[in-house]
Amino acid sequence: MLFSSVASHLKLAFVGEDLEIDSMNELNLSSSSQLSFGVHKKYSSELSLSKAKAFLITNTLVEHLPKDSSYIICEDVSVSMAQITKLFNKKPIDRELLLPKVGSNSYIDSMAKVENGAVIGSNVTIMAGAYIGTNVQIGDDTIIYPNVTIYRDCLIGRECIIHAGTVIGADGFGFSHTKTGEHVKIYQNGNVIIEDDVEIGANCAIDKAVFNSTIIRKGTKLDNFIHIAHNCDVGEYCIFVAQTGVGGSTKLGRNCVVSGQSAFSDHLSIAPFSTFTARSGVTKSITESGGVYSGFPLMNHRDWKRVQAKIGKLND
Amino acid sequence: MLFSSVASHLKLAFVGEDLEIDSMNELNLSSSSQLSFGVHKKYSSELSLSKAKAFLITNTLVEHLPKDSSYIICEDVSVSMAQITKLFNKKPIDRELLLPKVGSNSYIDSMAKVENGAVIGSNVTIMAGAYIGTNVQIGDDTIIYPNVTIYRDCLIGRECIIHAGTVIGADGFGFSHTKTGEHVKIYQNGNVIIEDDVEIGANCAIDKAVFNSTIIRKGTKLDNFIHIAHNCDVGEYCIFVAQTGVGGSTKLGRNCVVSGQSAFSDHLSIAPFSTFTARSGVTKSITESGGVYSGFPLMNHRDWKRVQAKIGKLND
Amino acid sequence: MLFSSVASHLKLAFVGEDLEIDSMNELNLSSSSQLSFGVHKKYSSELSLSKAKAFLITNTLVEHLPKDSSYIICEDVSVSMAQITKLFNKKPIDRELLLPKVGSNSYIDSMAKVENGAVIGSNVTIMAGAYIGTNVQIGDDTIIYPNVTIYRDCLIGRECIIHAGTVIGADGFGFSHTKTGEHVKIYQNGNVIIEDDVEIGANCAIDKAVFNSTIIRKGTKLDNFIHIAHNCDVGEYCIFVAQTGVGGSTKLGRNCVVSGQSAFSDHLSIAPFSTFTARSGVTKSITESGGVYSGFPLMNHRDWKRVQAKIGKLND
Repeated sequence: MLFSSVASHLKLAFVGEDLEIDSMNELNLSSSSQLSFGVHKKYSSELSLSKAKAFLITNTLVEHLPKDSSYIICEDVSVSMAQITKLFNKKPIDRELLLPKVGSNSYIDSMAKVENGAVIGSNVTIMAGAYIGTNVQIGDDTIIYPNVTIYRDCLIGRECIIHAGTVIGADGFGFSHTKTGEHVKIYQNGNVIIEDDVEIGANCAIDKAVFNSTIIRKGTKLDNFIHIAHNCDVGEYCIFVAQTGVGGSTKLGRNCVVSGQSAFSDHLSIAPFSTFTARSGVTKSITESGGVYSGFPLMNHRDWKRVQAKIGKLND
Repeated sequence: MLFSSVASHLKLAFVGEDLEIDSMNELNLSSSSQLSFGVHKKYSSELSLSKAKAFLITNTLVEHLPKDSSYIICEDVSVSMAQITKLFNKKPIDRELLLPKVGSNSYIDSMAKVENGAVIGSNVTIMAGAYIGTNVQIGDDTIIYPNVTIYRDCLIGRECIIHAGTVIGADGFGFSHTKTGEHVKIYQNGNVIIEDDVEIGANCAIDKAVFNSTIIRKGTKLDNFIHIAHNCDVGEYCIFVAQTGVGGSTKLGRNCVVSGQSAFSDHLSIAPFSTFTARSGVTKSITESGGVYSGFPLMNHRDWKRVQAKIGKLND
Repeated sequence: MLFSSVASHLKLAFVGEDLEIDSMNELNLSSSSQLSFGVHKKYSSELSLSKAKAFLITNTLVEHLPKDSSYIICEDVSVSMAQITKLFNKKPIDRELLLPKVGSNSYIDSMAKVENGAVIGSNVTIMAGAYIGTNVQIGDDTIIYPNVTIYRDCLIGRECIIHAGTVIGADGFGFSHTKTGEHVKIYQNGNVIIEDDVEIGANCAIDKAVFNSTIIRKGTKLDNFIHIAHNCDVGEYCIFVAQTGVGGSTKLGRNCVVSGQSAFSDHLSIAPFSTFTARSGVTKSITESGGVYSGFPLMNHRDWKRVQAKIGKLND
């Protein structure tokens, strides 16, 4: 899409060369063919270093644009950005692609749906009611239980087990907000990558990234009802006990253990080998590996036990 | 159904005229053709003002009945009421209705099920594994992702997005309890209304009303794993982050923001523009709009932050 | 399978007679044809009383073996045990069994999948998108709503109602852990038993037992999003409000009431007629029946209310 088309969709003027744009991305992840956007002053250095050549931008950030950038000055960059994500949104199904490819010894139930463009490995089992979207890839020896849904473009590794009712690749929860309180959908154009040897319990939901990928790395195990938001990166060999949730873009190192009903805020970075006891509420990043934490607000587990004892004594 | 049939089902006597009853309802919402019920003294004024003409009632409330009412005196009104809801319960599927109507440019996957009596608008997408129940209506430009279930009689607006695995219109959780500890199902005979421009994440559950409707109003956005109980009324442009729950009959005003893992008790009324931080537990109604709240029990957000700091210092 | 095959799979030596093994089980539940395992010193008395005749065992427990046992000494019994569960794991579908049997007056939608070996009672309704696994039995008058998944070998009673999206019999969440931090799946070879008159809400997940059965007893009612882990035993006439979870092997007595977002640790025993208010976190067994509890850590409800009041006053 031409940058001039973006501008005319927004009914705004553009400055600079009219470039061909193939997709959108964050400032620090953009390539030269991607459209990016600068919302806040705090991103001014990321802006100046971005490899993108076309931007949606607030008036006050123009001075930080890389040299020779094309740009559109928006009154509300956040809302304009959301509106433009719709232009790059892929339709939910692409039926014009080639028929799915299926490896040897795989069983696909006649009541499962596999869309065109999908590539299924060898010795895969896909049970009745499962939905395998456009361009999804599934590695060898993986089993997909009934009524699992995998949205288009997601990648599933080898020797994975995905239990019934789980949804992989639904839209991340992202909206911009107008001054009058309406919510403008930020279309989620990324995907989910599930690496090898991952097991995902029943009725989980792992959302696709807004741009790029949500990732669950090798050997990680999820219990039932786990919520992983868009753009998370869950390290290798993590354990998530039931009913836990991870906010958007949070990154966990390897071998973290997350006990039941715990939750993480968005945009955190959690050191490897961190352990969280039941119902932990994690709102800050953790830089030191190997700690054990509890409570909400989160404390060192030992401190939390002492606080709990003292709370119990408030009645004395 | 004749009121005399209701009485004979309960093996109880009825007093007054034998009326034709078409359904059941709460005291304050009943029409003259509906059966209502009075359980507690506290409802005596609602009882006296009810437009219903037929009642299940405790002995002590007879004096508050509207003039010329027909009634059945029950030893345990709550249990009798539950028993009678079964008589008015609609079967899960009605296959004798007309074939579904589908507007232009709509795509219904051959592996989706659309029951008779359903009316699907134009430019609707219904993906594989979705279930559209008897008499369900779906507005134009709405997309229903795979393995969504919409129970009979529910109404979905225009430009809605309903993500995979979500269940709309399952029975609300309502039981009467016998003296020996058994639970008698209160059949849920209402529906769910989803207004226009609503997005619902993956694996949510929005229960049908016991009578009348559970409502999600225009422009509201739900993340994954949201539980909305029977008879809730969620205002326009609300935001619900993942793993939150709302108890039965609770009403939220417009533009409320409910952060992750929060929950509301039943029968609350929440002022518009209220914000709840993560894991809020709301057990009382809120009358003033625009507040920010946290914690369980719920506090003003600023107070909660101070309390949290003090709890942290209990160890000092 | 011969015990010698188990040994050769582990590349370890076996001591004693080469027995035919038909399955695995816990020490105290094993029969003479089952393989059992002793991991910790604390199980030495259970070990000495076990009816099993073949064991995986640590060096230090050999002296506690019943007389004439066959055994394999493992460096890491937990990991070896997990590896051997795979040998006894049943494949997800067995298509060589007889076609399903269906009683009179039952309706099975053409878009529901019923695997071979299943036995469906009379007057049962199975709606579109439901999956009924190999050897599943469903009692008379039960209704299975759309997109429910019931894994192989599970048993569902009479007059049950199972709402859409619920998953019964997914693998319990069990892994052994290697010294290098990898997780070795403990294959879950048991089932789920749902007794008569049980209602299960939308999008619940009740996991199969590792060995033996997870049980939901007669007349119990579950709201939406309930997580019941492997090997739980939920007593008769319990009530679970939405978004609650029960850890593995926990046993609840009859008529417990569990309010929303509550959770139980694993391996607890809860006395009958216990009530838990919203968001209770239960980490210890309860021996006295009829109590009311709140909070996390759990307290007597009356104490908790006083503590909450005092916390509220920390700001004064």
